Amino acid sequence: MNIDLNCDLGEGFGPYKVGDQEEILTYISSVNIACGFHSGDPTIMRTTVKKAIQHNVKIGAHPGLPDLIGFGRREMNISPEEAYDAVVYQIGALQGFLSTFNESLNHVKPHGALYNMAAKDASLAKAIAQAVYDVSPSLILYGLSGSELTKAGENIGLQTAHEVFADRTYQSDGTLTSRKEPHALIVDTDQSIQQVLGFVKDGSVRTMQGTQHSLKAHTVCVHGDSVQALKFVQNITKALRNDDIHIRPLA
Amino acid sequence: MNIDLNCDLGEGFGPYKVGDQEEILTYISSVNIACGFHSGDPTIMRTTVKKAIQHNVKIGAHPGLPDLIGFGRREMNISPEEAYDAVVYQIGALQGFLSTFNESLNHVKPHGALYNMAAKDASLAKAIAQAVYDVSPSLILYGLSGSELTKAGENIGLQTAHEVFADRTYQSDGTLTSRKEPHALIVDTDQSIQQVLGFVKDGSVRTMQGTQHSLKAHTVCVHGDSVQALKFVQNITKALRNDDIHIRPLA
Amino acid sequence: MNIDLNCDLGEGFGPYKVGDQEEILTYISSVNIACGFHSGDPTIMRTTVKKAIQHNVKIGAHPGLPDLIGFGRREMNISPEEAYDAVVYQIGALQGFLSTFNESLNHVKPHGALYNMAAKDASLAKAIAQAVYDVSPSLILYGLSGSELTKAGENIGLQTAHEVFADRTYQSDGTLTSRKEPHALIVDTDQSIQQVLGFVKDGSVRTMQGTQHSLKAHTVCVHGDSVQALKFVQNITKALRNDDIHIRPLA
Amino acid sequence: MNIDLNCDLGEGFGPYKVGDQEEILTYISSVNIACGFHSGDPTIMRTTVKKAIQHNVKIGAHPGLPDLIGFGRREMNISPEEAYDAVVYQIGALQGFLSTFNESLNHVKPHGALYNMAAKDASLAKAIAQAVYDVSPSLILYGLSGSELTKAGENIGLQTAHEVFADRTYQSDGTLTSRKEPHALIVDTDQSIQQVLGFVKDGSVRTMQGTQHSLKAHTVCVHGDSVQALKFVQNITKALRNDDIHIRPLA
Repeated sequence: MNIDLNCDLGEGFGPYKVGDQEEILTYISSVNIACGFHSGDPTIMRTTVKKAIQHNVKIGAHPGLPDLIGFGRREMNISPEEAYDAVVYQIGALQGFLSTFNESLNHVKPHGALYNMAAKDASLAKAIAQAVYDVSPSLILYGLSGSELTKAGENIGLQTAHEVFADRTYQSDGTLTSRKEPHALIVDTDQSIQQVLGFVKDGSVRTMQGTQHSLKAHTVCVHGDSVQALKFVQNITKALRNDDIHIRPLA
Repeated sequence: MNIDLNCDLGEGFGPYKVGDQEEILTYISSVNIACGFHSGDPTIMRTTVKKAIQHNVKIGAHPGLPDLIGFGRREMNISPEEAYDAVVYQIGALQGFLSTFNESLNHVKPHGALYNMAAKDASLAKAIAQAVYDVSPSLILYGLSGSELTKAGENIGLQTAHEVFADRTYQSDGTLTSRKEPHALIVDTDQSIQQVLGFVKDGSVRTMQGTQHSLKAHTVCVHGDSVQALKFVQNITKALRNDDIHIRPLA
Repeated sequence: MNIDLNCDLGEGFGPYKVGDQEEILTYISSVNIACGFHSGDPTIMRTTVKKAIQHNVKIGAHPGLPDLIGFGRREMNISPEEAYDAVVYQIGALQGFLSTFNESLNHVKPHGALYNMAAKDASLAKAIAQAVYDVSPSLILYGLSGSELTKAGENIGLQTAHEVFADRTYQSDGTLTSRKEPHALIVDTDQSIQQVLGFVKDGSVRTMQGTQHSLKAHTVCVHGDSVQALKFVQNITKALRNDDIHIRPLA
Repeated sequence: MNIDLNCDLGEGFGPYKVGDQEEILTYISSVNIACGFHSGDPTIMRTTVKKAIQHNVKIGAHPGLPDLIGFGRREMNISPEEAYDAVVYQIGALQGFLSTFNESLNHVKPHGALYNMAAKDASLAKAIAQAVYDVSPSLILYGLSGSELTKAGENIGLQTAHEVFADRTYQSDGTLTSRKEPHALIVDTDQSIQQVLGFVKDGSVRTMQGTQHSLKAHTVCVHGDSVQALKFVQNITKALRNDDIHIRPLA
């Protein structure tokens, strides 16, 4: 059995560094690199690409909304056309750095509010999937499991990665509990590990309403931006290996 | 005899459009498209790329300094490494849009203050040439004729286009007369045409000091952002054709 | 009888100028100057302030969302606190330029999506009114007539200007017809003049549904960014004077 | 005997916070708050102003070049007029937040490259001094001791604070040793304390060339953005008090 572990990196800006994110690269199989719209800058992009290549981790673009102050987390009423253009631009910019290492992008995962809006809004999802496809049909599109974004990717003919979250709780309809609600985040490591094992082995998750919800789980999103986050990743990778589940990027 | 005519386009931003620049595309052989740092935005980049392809004009990236308010015309003390990263980022972003049309970039021409600094500063020139080469060694590097930038391009093994200006006067050492000086600009169309014919046929220019200066002329920069500019391009192309000089992109 | 005519000016950016907007200043009584978030930059702000003072036109701040590419017209999900901070910042920045002329701001009118969101969202409206009040309780708050924004201003104790539009049609509930609908804009000058006279003399407007809607009309928004717009303002001021209605700023 | 201790605060941006900078406010008498061009954003400005008022520390504006990625540390070739406008804008924006607390700005200290350029370039210095004076002649202008900036402030009639550095070495002509040179920074706390005491008690500093250089010292710049920096400030304030030197803001 295989599972992909992915993490968002390169999310500093100018003088602001987000810790030493190198160790997380030893645990994950795929990395999503910020492209300058919600965070990241050309120098951070180059150095993050370089480290990911050194650790043999698959590299994806992590395009966001043009909102540095809000870190791309504030929904903006952009048109599908504007979304298309913003995604093409950011994929291209990151591919520029990969080209300098004779490497190619593996995947694209929208960030923050763009990710959330594309999970629900079919026309935005379609525009993003089209952008990814038009830049290169061999790119893999990452989106929330069972969302409009993965559906749009499948419809257009892209390989699509259904993403699940280790530290977020789920509602009975398969959506994530909003961050504004209590219990949106799972803070207990054991509970989180059980949820991940459930995703991978059973293709289901126990929801806040107590029901069991079936969902696809191709890739698990983890965080590496704190000591606790790193410790959590160590524990989760250990638990996966104990169950003979291999951490591998998507083909 | 052949000469390349190039023009900077796509230099609007958001709500600000720079006229209908489509007619200029019928006269030129190469276009340099702004990449979002000094002007341009994702939507303008896509639409400008599309029009250039429709008119069968070769497309180059026109990377600038990160200075929207100053239109990339204010010198900034960036390091060679920062220049490298900024150029890779911008080339990549524009290539993203070309990829959606299954096309590839032809060349790179730095903009404004980046162009001027790279003409004189060998380490900055080297960093820019390296960036272009690392993204793709088949890209052509455009730079001021006889400058540090063209020298750096040649040293690294890039095809290099020595650029001359139809409407700028020259000093006896081959540099352009500073825009701060009187007579920096040639306003008389006939004088300008004679200068262009001198570049192409004789490989030399009459300087402000009255001397004749030899220089390479692979490409002539023209402007198309006003009615007069367009008229000037029409006159210059007519004069070139009358002398059996073909307007062709660099191979 | 008196009415205030207001116009948004200074909405260029860096190299992008929005025509010569000086003539419009001879017809209007109040101007709203962009503050750098949706358009405008420090140099444009200074020169626009200077011209407005020369023409003895009352000056207001025109704060927008932080979205240069979208010209502040794309709704963003900002918190009331973020709205408060953005408005204080922009009012202060413009007041800086007024201080250099020993002048004080007269009013504040939010721009674009911020204006529209504040018309409907009570908590956002309250935050904006609070920001204006906290900077100076003597500032006048401009908002859509009968909106949440004017209500919030009145509740906090600000003088409030109910704004009406000469060239927009109205729905039976007093809201503006959405720009996405047909007939949102009035293109016939006579129809527009009749609507303005109806606002001022009768305090009512004929809606798209054929009903008559009562509303307060303290200030009429006009545009001056084209030859036609200017001509329209000339016609409207003539019609007002013919009816003995004086164009005067709010006290 | 009195001396002012000043520190730059509020230099985060959006999601990027620069530690808890509150403790430093208990040791210093003046704070310079970033205004959004090189760092800082509206929310950070409000919260930093609030804390400074709570700790009864005098507040100044810390305007920088429009260069978020470079943190305002890269010299840009801006015109004196552009410098004037950028400084007025940033002072005004910060004053906006002070107004909400019924407070007024005490001083202005340019940041980074703007500070360094204004120390040497008389026309830039004059434009900055004029901007400060035009916003309010009662503002105090902070500049490098003995620089063009303090000279310009004095010429225009501003109260001027000659600033010295606790942790930087000096050249025999009174300039700071460039950060590109070895020994630019003083890392030994005792040496640094001796230098500060020399500034305050003798009005002179021992230079890298071994000579003694006389200079005015109205205010000492300290840093508070790390545990060591804070410890250093604690040691320096202790040493000053032991010598009966009071830490007080400029009147």
